[in-house]
Amino acid sequence: MPKKIVVIGGGTGSAVVLSGLREYPVDLTAIVAVTDSGGSTGRLRTEFGFLPVGDMRQCLAALAKGNKSEYIRKLLLYRFDKGKGLEGHNLGNLILTALTDISSSEPKAVEVAAQIFRLEGRILPITTKNIQLMAVYENGKTVIGEHEIDEPKQGGKRIIKLLTKPEAVIYKEAKKAILAADLIILGPGDLYTSILPNLIINGVRKTFLLSKAKVVYIVNLMTRFGQTHNLSANDHVQEIERYLGKKPDFVLFNNRKIPEKILQLYKKEKGFPTKDDIKGKIHYKLIRGDFLAPELVIKPKGDVKKRSFLRHNSKKLAKTIISLLK
Amino acid sequence: MPKKIVVIGGGTGSAVVLSGLREYPVDLTAIVAVTDSGGSTGRLRTEFGFLPVGDMRQCLAALAKGNKSEYIRKLLLYRFDKGKGLEGHNLGNLILTALTDISSSEPKAVEVAAQIFRLEGRILPITTKNIQLMAVYENGKTVIGEHEIDEPKQGGKRIIKLLTKPEAVIYKEAKKAILAADLIILGPGDLYTSILPNLIINGVRKTFLLSKAKVVYIVNLMTRFGQTHNLSANDHVQEIERYLGKKPDFVLFNNRKIPEKILQLYKKEKGFPTKDDIKGKIHYKLIRGDFLAPELVIKPKGDVKKRSFLRHNSKKLAKTIISLLK
Repeated sequence: MPKKIVVIGGGTGSAVVLSGLREYPVDLTAIVAVTDSGGSTGRLRTEFGFLPVGDMRQCLAALAKGNKSEYIRKLLLYRFDKGKGLEGHNLGNLILTALTDISSSEPKAVEVAAQIFRLEGRILPITTKNIQLMAVYENGKTVIGEHEIDEPKQGGKRIIKLLTKPEAVIYKEAKKAILAADLIILGPGDLYTSILPNLIINGVRKTFLLSKAKVVYIVNLMTRFGQTHNLSANDHVQEIERYLGKKPDFVLFNNRKIPEKILQLYKKEKGFPTKDDIKGKIHYKLIRGDFLAPELVIKPKGDVKKRSFLRHNSKKLAKTIISLLK
Repeated sequence: MPKKIVVIGGGTGSAVVLSGLREYPVDLTAIVAVTDSGGSTGRLRTEFGFLPVGDMRQCLAALAKGNKSEYIRKLLLYRFDKGKGLEGHNLGNLILTALTDISSSEPKAVEVAAQIFRLEGRILPITTKNIQLMAVYENGKTVIGEHEIDEPKQGGKRIIKLLTKPEAVIYKEAKKAILAADLIILGPGDLYTSILPNLIINGVRKTFLLSKAKVVYIVNLMTRFGQTHNLSANDHVQEIERYLGKKPDFVLFNNRKIPEKILQLYKKEKGFPTKDDIKGKIHYKLIRGDFLAPELVIKPKGDVKKRSFLRHNSKKLAKTIISLLK
């Protein structure tokens, strides 16, 4: 039986891991946060009242395989750059919205989409409850809505508590997947808006404690002024541990130098490479390596969301992850 | 080798024929008019400058086959009934628009869509030129734009000349399909806005003369005040002959009585059953029969276009058409 790998996070980072892993004979499940509230996804969420679809759409595209997969990927990721009311909308989001309306449930919609587009693997929301993300900052300020968190106006301040409004319980299929997993990958992805929004759902912590899966955490390449300013690699791992209730078994950290011209781009947004301060006695296996994607990410026209310029290298991540299964 | 059937028309009527024929082991090609300029299609046409996609989308949905086809059909035909700027748009139209943008050509877009959605058969535009339909009425008035023709304000007046602006030449693949066909089906569909917009394209008439295919014309169930008011069955056939340059080999005519309550619905729009006045010596085989679909068509919310309440029966049409192959 193929080994079961569960990838937990949001859209962009999980897609990187999944698109590397889809080339291996493993059983893949993506579990995604459902707190996204910005951009095309946010508009659809407000107008249709469904769960946010953007992260699921990115995972769908990453799981497309076979001879038509390039077109399927392009189709799912296509963003309209004109058209009254269409501009900025993502076609994959519109497809998932229509399928949710047709099939009356978000998990069913994404399951049907996976069948229509012949995808390898499954995608599950961490909860089926319609929730908003809520962050309490060190200065006592509370902000509601994922797209409001990670804004420069909160920049530099530490998030001391992350929760959802209302509280929500883990989706039973996500629970089953975590319990059955051999390996669970957390990240890469924005700590407070992609990874932790999964871990704070009721029942997730307990499910992780019951699961025999090894947990891999992939540290972010760069800090972000809106949420992880000044957080070192060790700080990242500690935040994961604090919300998860246990240490990861493996931590992957990129140690390849980021090219100067990319650093300059990030500097404008007050983003810096995550500082490697992990040393001494640690209770997990640290794997440092070259996990950097060579190419810069060009943001498509019409995309209004904050996105990274850099990505992890999906092939190298996948190779390392697969080696941990042995 | 399976027999080659080419279905020529627009969206709704061709979809009825195709969805019946897809159950038989025949090689299906749909050739569609590209003069649609109303509704969701018209909006996209104006904003993106591509060929109209609505008729192709209906044919795509009709050709979906296999165990996921019900969902694929629902997905392609889904119409948004809310969402700023989305309302009234058809998801299949958005998919074809995105694929046209991605693949840089409308024929390629519909070919890719056919592969992604695993369809049986091909769909070809009659021309790849971006054209508008133009009608000259008996009172000398000229109207440009398909959605302007068939409006009550032109009601009751005969169209004496139908042309396109600018002129356009038949798409080479459509030409090949007509030449290779064993049987060509014209209709059912609106005479002046679905069927004849194909026949008036330069090269079509000549291609028909060169083709050895038998031609079947399916007479409309009802007349429409905007374009075929007072036209009898014989008038319909004569118009086809006038534009095609030859008589059809077979004419299919429904002789089942239309239920009174449906007649009342049509009466409000000044639509009446097409009068059967075909008698005496005719140079084609007339097949009268029960070709009526039992169910009334419910127009989806958000659909602003004129559509018929009645359809032909796709199974009965297909059975009769297949019998003509022998």
